[in-house]
Amino acid sequence: MGTQGFSELMARLEKLDFQKLYQDDFFLTWDKSREELDAIWVVADAIRKLREENKSTRIFDSGLGISIFRDNSTRTRFSFMSACNLLGLEVADLDEKKSQIAHGETLLETANMVSFMADVIGIRDDMYIGKGHTYQKEFADSVKRGFEEGILEQRPTVVSLQCDIDHPTQMMADSLHFAHYFGNGDMESLKGKKIAMTWAYSPSYGKPLSVPQGGIGLWTRLGMDVVLAHPEGYEDMDDVIEVAKKNAAECGGSFTVTNSMEEAFKDADIVYPKSWAPFKAMEERTELYGNGDFDGIDELEQRLLQQNAKHKDWTVTEELMKVTKDGKALYCHPLPADITDVSCKEGEVDASVFDRYRKELYAQASFKPYIIAAMIFLQRVKNPKAKLEELYKADVKRMQE
Amino acid sequence: MGTQGFSELMARLEKLDFQKLYQDDFFLTWDKSREELDAIWVVADAIRKLREENKSTRIFDSGLGISIFRDNSTRTRFSFMSACNLLGLEVADLDEKKSQIAHGETLLETANMVSFMADVIGIRDDMYIGKGHTYQKEFADSVKRGFEEGILEQRPTVVSLQCDIDHPTQMMADSLHFAHYFGNGDMESLKGKKIAMTWAYSPSYGKPLSVPQGGIGLWTRLGMDVVLAHPEGYEDMDDVIEVAKKNAAECGGSFTVTNSMEEAFKDADIVYPKSWAPFKAMEERTELYGNGDFDGIDELEQRLLQQNAKHKDWTVTEELMKVTKDGKALYCHPLPADITDVSCKEGEVDASVFDRYRKELYAQASFKPYIIAAMIFLQRVKNPKAKLEELYKADVKRMQE
Amino acid sequence: MGTQGFSELMARLEKLDFQKLYQDDFFLTWDKSREELDAIWVVADAIRKLREENKSTRIFDSGLGISIFRDNSTRTRFSFMSACNLLGLEVADLDEKKSQIAHGETLLETANMVSFMADVIGIRDDMYIGKGHTYQKEFADSVKRGFEEGILEQRPTVVSLQCDIDHPTQMMADSLHFAHYFGNGDMESLKGKKIAMTWAYSPSYGKPLSVPQGGIGLWTRLGMDVVLAHPEGYEDMDDVIEVAKKNAAECGGSFTVTNSMEEAFKDADIVYPKSWAPFKAMEERTELYGNGDFDGIDELEQRLLQQNAKHKDWTVTEELMKVTKDGKALYCHPLPADITDVSCKEGEVDASVFDRYRKELYAQASFKPYIIAAMIFLQRVKNPKAKLEELYKADVKRMQE
Repeated sequence: MGTQGFSELMARLEKLDFQKLYQDDFFLTWDKSREELDAIWVVADAIRKLREENKSTRIFDSGLGISIFRDNSTRTRFSFMSACNLLGLEVADLDEKKSQIAHGETLLETANMVSFMADVIGIRDDMYIGKGHTYQKEFADSVKRGFEEGILEQRPTVVSLQCDIDHPTQMMADSLHFAHYFGNGDMESLKGKKIAMTWAYSPSYGKPLSVPQGGIGLWTRLGMDVVLAHPEGYEDMDDVIEVAKKNAAECGGSFTVTNSMEEAFKDADIVYPKSWAPFKAMEERTELYGNGDFDGIDELEQRLLQQNAKHKDWTVTEELMKVTKDGKALYCHPLPADITDVSCKEGEVDASVFDRYRKELYAQASFKPYIIAAMIFLQRVKNPKAKLEELYKADVKRMQE
Repeated sequence: MGTQGFSELMARLEKLDFQKLYQDDFFLTWDKSREELDAIWVVADAIRKLREENKSTRIFDSGLGISIFRDNSTRTRFSFMSACNLLGLEVADLDEKKSQIAHGETLLETANMVSFMADVIGIRDDMYIGKGHTYQKEFADSVKRGFEEGILEQRPTVVSLQCDIDHPTQMMADSLHFAHYFGNGDMESLKGKKIAMTWAYSPSYGKPLSVPQGGIGLWTRLGMDVVLAHPEGYEDMDDVIEVAKKNAAECGGSFTVTNSMEEAFKDADIVYPKSWAPFKAMEERTELYGNGDFDGIDELEQRLLQQNAKHKDWTVTEELMKVTKDGKALYCHPLPADITDVSCKEGEVDASVFDRYRKELYAQASFKPYIIAAMIFLQRVKNPKAKLEELYKADVKRMQE
Repeated sequence: MGTQGFSELMARLEKLDFQKLYQDDFFLTWDKSREELDAIWVVADAIRKLREENKSTRIFDSGLGISIFRDNSTRTRFSFMSACNLLGLEVADLDEKKSQIAHGETLLETANMVSFMADVIGIRDDMYIGKGHTYQKEFADSVKRGFEEGILEQRPTVVSLQCDIDHPTQMMADSLHFAHYFGNGDMESLKGKKIAMTWAYSPSYGKPLSVPQGGIGLWTRLGMDVVLAHPEGYEDMDDVIEVAKKNAAECGGSFTVTNSMEEAFKDADIVYPKSWAPFKAMEERTELYGNGDFDGIDELEQRLLQQNAKHKDWTVTEELMKVTKDGKALYCHPLPADITDVSCKEGEVDASVFDRYRKELYAQASFKPYIIAAMIFLQRVKNPKAKLEELYKADVKRMQE
C-alpha cells in the first residue's frame, strides 16, 4: 500500500459511525455495531501502515497500560505490550503473585489503587466459566466510578484480552487476516465465504471455549456461511449459539451446527480446527474449584481425557483438506497448535498441513497487536481520523535510521 | 483550579527555601525542614495540576527508576511506577529472586552495578526493626560514592517507600489529603486540628509501625493536636516518641499518648485507626529471624495474636464515630483495611463507616504518586519553579486527543 | 573529553569499514572484523560522551527490546535494560516461567510471536555446553526468516549477552576499560601489553567458560601477549584455543598456555583471575542433564568440588601481585568475585587486593551498557556517523535540569 492506501483507509473511516467506542470498554464483539467493528479494522490497518512507513504512532507522552493475566501467557502478553508501546504507554503488570491484595479487598478498591495513571487496562481471564467476563465488567465499572467520583484524572478503558465467553482481539485479528487474504483488507470480500469452526482432538483437555464462541459470534455478522462442527457432547454456551443464529438471520449469511468434521470442511474457504472443552464440563469444573474438590477435578480430567480419546479421528489430514474448496481452504489456528508427531503423538493437525500454512499462520498472529492498538486508539482519541492524518503528515520517524 | 491556581502555587514555591533537597535523598520527614516539606506539597499539587490540564510533565528523555521491594507490594509499586512514568523514567525492578547476587556481595557493589543509568531508586524495606532505614541509607551512600568516584554519570537519589521507622510518602500524601479536605491544599488549615492516630484490632499480626510513627513524627510539625492511642504493650519506638514531643513543643501543637481509643476520638477532626505490632515484639522477631529460630517465631506469632485478641473492642464503630467533632471526623486509612464482616469477622472498622468514607479514602491514596513525583522532581531539578513554569507554558499534550 | 573528543571519535569512525554490522547479529567477537570491533568501541565512547554532556541518545520513538535470560541475572539484565533505555526501546522480558510455550512448539514460532515490535533481542544462555550459541543462532535465523517472509515489519537483530562459547559484551567492555586505563580509549595502547587470563579457586563449581574463552579469543587480536593459565584438567574448548593461536599469529601478539599462575602473573600488565569449570566436565554435565541423571550430576558436582579443592593455592595474594609489572598490574574481574574472608573462607582473591582495585572494577563494569547500546546502534542505524553527529548537534537534553 502507498499513500493512496492510507487515504483510502481514511475515506472508509469517514463514512463510519463509531463515536460510541470513545471512552468505552471492549468486552464482546456482539456488544458493538458492525460499523464500530469496521472502524477498528480500518484503524488497525492505518496504524500498521504508519508503522510500515516508519512513522510514529505515539499519542501518549506518558501514561500506563495495566495488564492483568490470570493465567500464563506469552503471545497475548507481548501483543498487549506491543500495542501499548506503539501508542506511547508503558505497561505495568499487575502480577497477583507479587501483590499485597488483602483477603476480602474489594475489586473496586484494587482497580482504583492501580489506575491513577492508567489509560487502558488489558485483562485476560478465561479459566472459569461464568467468571472472566464478569470480572472484566466489574473492573471496568470500578474505574469508571473512580473517574466519575474524581478519584482518577482519566477514564481508563478496558480491553478484554480473552474471557470465558469471547476472545475478541483474537477474532478481530483473525477476521482482518481473512480479509487481507481474500480481498486486500475489505471485509465485503468475506461475504458468502464458508468457514468451518471445528473441534479437533488434542491430548490435553480444558482448552477455552472462547475461541469457537468468539468465532461464531463474529463471523456470522460478516455474511459468511459459518459451520460449527464438534462431536456430540462438545457443545458451546447456549447463549452464544443464539447470538450466532440471530446474527446469521440479520446479516445475510448462515449458521449451521453439525457433528461431522468432513461435512464442515466440504467446500470450505476457511477451516479453523481447534480443541476445546465441553461447556457443561467447564461449568462442572468451576463448581468443583469453588468447593475445593480436587479429587473431583482429577476425576473430571480423567473423564474428559477419555472422552477426547474417542475422537482422535477429528484431526486435519491432507485427505481431509482435499474436500475443502479446490482443496485449498485457508487453514487457521490461534496458535500454539497440537501438531501430530511434532508437539504430540496425535494432535489437531498433520505436520505437512501445518507447515504448508505456517507463513499464513504467523501472518494471522501478526494482526493482533494492531487490533489491540486500534481498540485503545478508538477508546481514547476523540477524533481518530484527524489524529491519524496528523500522525501521517507529521511524519515523526518511529526509528531514526 | 484554573491557571490562577498554578500561578498561586508558583508564588508559594517562590517563597520557600528548599535547595537542600536537590541531589539529596528522602528517608525521614524529620530530616527535612518545614519549608522543604512545603515545597514537596506545592510541587505535588503543581504536577497534578499539569496532568489535570493534560500537559506533559516529562523531564527525562531517557533514564531509569530502580525499584526495590523487599516484600510484596501493589499500591506502592504502582505509585512509584506512576511517578516515574509521569517524569519520563522507565522502572527497572530489582527483583532479588531473579537476581544473581552473590553471597557476601557488598551492597556497595550491587548498588553501583544496577545504577549506571539510574536517576532515582525507590526502596521499601519495612520488615525488620533496625534494618530498613539502615539499608536505605547504605544504598544511598553507595551510589553517592559511585557518583563521586566517577563510576556513575549521575547521582541517583533515593526515595524511601517505607522503612522500619517512617513511611514518608504515605504520610506526606495523607497530609496533603487533609489539607485539601480542610483548606484547598493549604497546610495552615490544619493548625489546631485534632488528629487521633490510634491502634485498632486486626486478626493478623505484625503490621508495620512505620505508619503510626510516621504520622506522629509529621503531624506534630503542622501545629496539630496529635493523640496517639493504643492498648498497653503496643508502644512505638522511643526515639520517634521523642521526635513527636520535640516537634509539638516547637511547632505550636500538642502531642499526647493515651490508652483509650474513645479519649483519642473525642472531638477529633481526623481519625486514623490502624493495627500495628508492638515495637518490642518486632525487635524480638528480628532477633529470632537472625537466629533462624522458626519455632520461636511461631510461638511469638501465637502470643501476639492472643494479645491482639484481648483488644477486639479497639474498633471503629458508628457509636465511636459519634464522639468525634460534630460526629463527622474525617476517617483515614492507608489501605487495605480490615473491615468487619467484609475482609474478616472482626476487624479495624465497621463496614458502614468504611463505606461512608470510601470516596475520601481513595482520594487520600491518589496523592501518593504525585508526592513521589514531587520528591524526585525536587531531587533532580536544579530550578524547579522555572522548570514547572516552562512545562506549563510549553503545553506539550500528555495525551493527544 | 570536550567537543574535541567527540570530533576525534567521529574522525576515527569515518576511517572504519563496518557496514556489515548493519542488520546483522552479534554472537562471537571472532565473527567480526577488527574494524567492526573498533567501530563498536568508538560508538560506545561516543554514546557515553553524549550522555556525559546530557544529550539525548534516543533513536527510537517506540519499539521493544526483548530480553531472554535462561538463568538468573542482575548485572546483565540491568546493562541490557540500560542500553535499550538509552536508545528509546522498552524492554519486554520473555520470562519462560510466565510463558505459555507449548511442548514441542518450535523456536521459529516463539521467536516470531514475540517479535512483532522487536528491534533487538538480547539472549543470555550460558549454562549448557553446545547449546547456548546454537539457541541464539536459531533465534536470530527465525526472526530473520520472519522478516524476509513479511511477517515482521522490521528485522530484529540479536545481541548475545553470553553463550557457552563467548561473552562478547563483557569482553568488549573489558577491553574498552583497558584502553581507557592505558591510553585514553585507544586500542593501540594495548599492543605488546601482557595479560594473564588465569583460573582461580572458588568454593563453588561450574562457573562459565565463556569468560576465559572470550578473553583469549579477543585479546589475541589486539597485539597483546595473552597467557592462559590454569591447573591441569581445566582446559578450555579446543576450537577457541585454535582461534586464539591463529589470532596471535596474525595480529602480532602471542598466545601461551601454562599451568603456573605465577608464570602468568610475571611482569603482566593486566591480570584477570577467575574460576571456571573444566570444559570436559561441562560436556559431561550437559549429557547427564539430557539423560535426567540427577544422581550422576550430584556425583559430578562432588568430584569437581574435590578437584577444585586441590588448587586452593590458585588465588590472588598481595605476594603474587608483586611479581606483576612494577607490582602494579591492573587487576580485573567480571564480578561478583569470591573474595577470601568476605564472600567465602577461601576464594579467588584477597580482600586487600580487591579493595585496592574496587574503583577500577566498577569502572570496568560501567562500560557494558554502552557496549550493548553501541552494538544495537550499529545493527539498526544505516549511517551511524551522521546520526551521532545529528544527536550531538540537536542537543535534546537527556534530563531537563
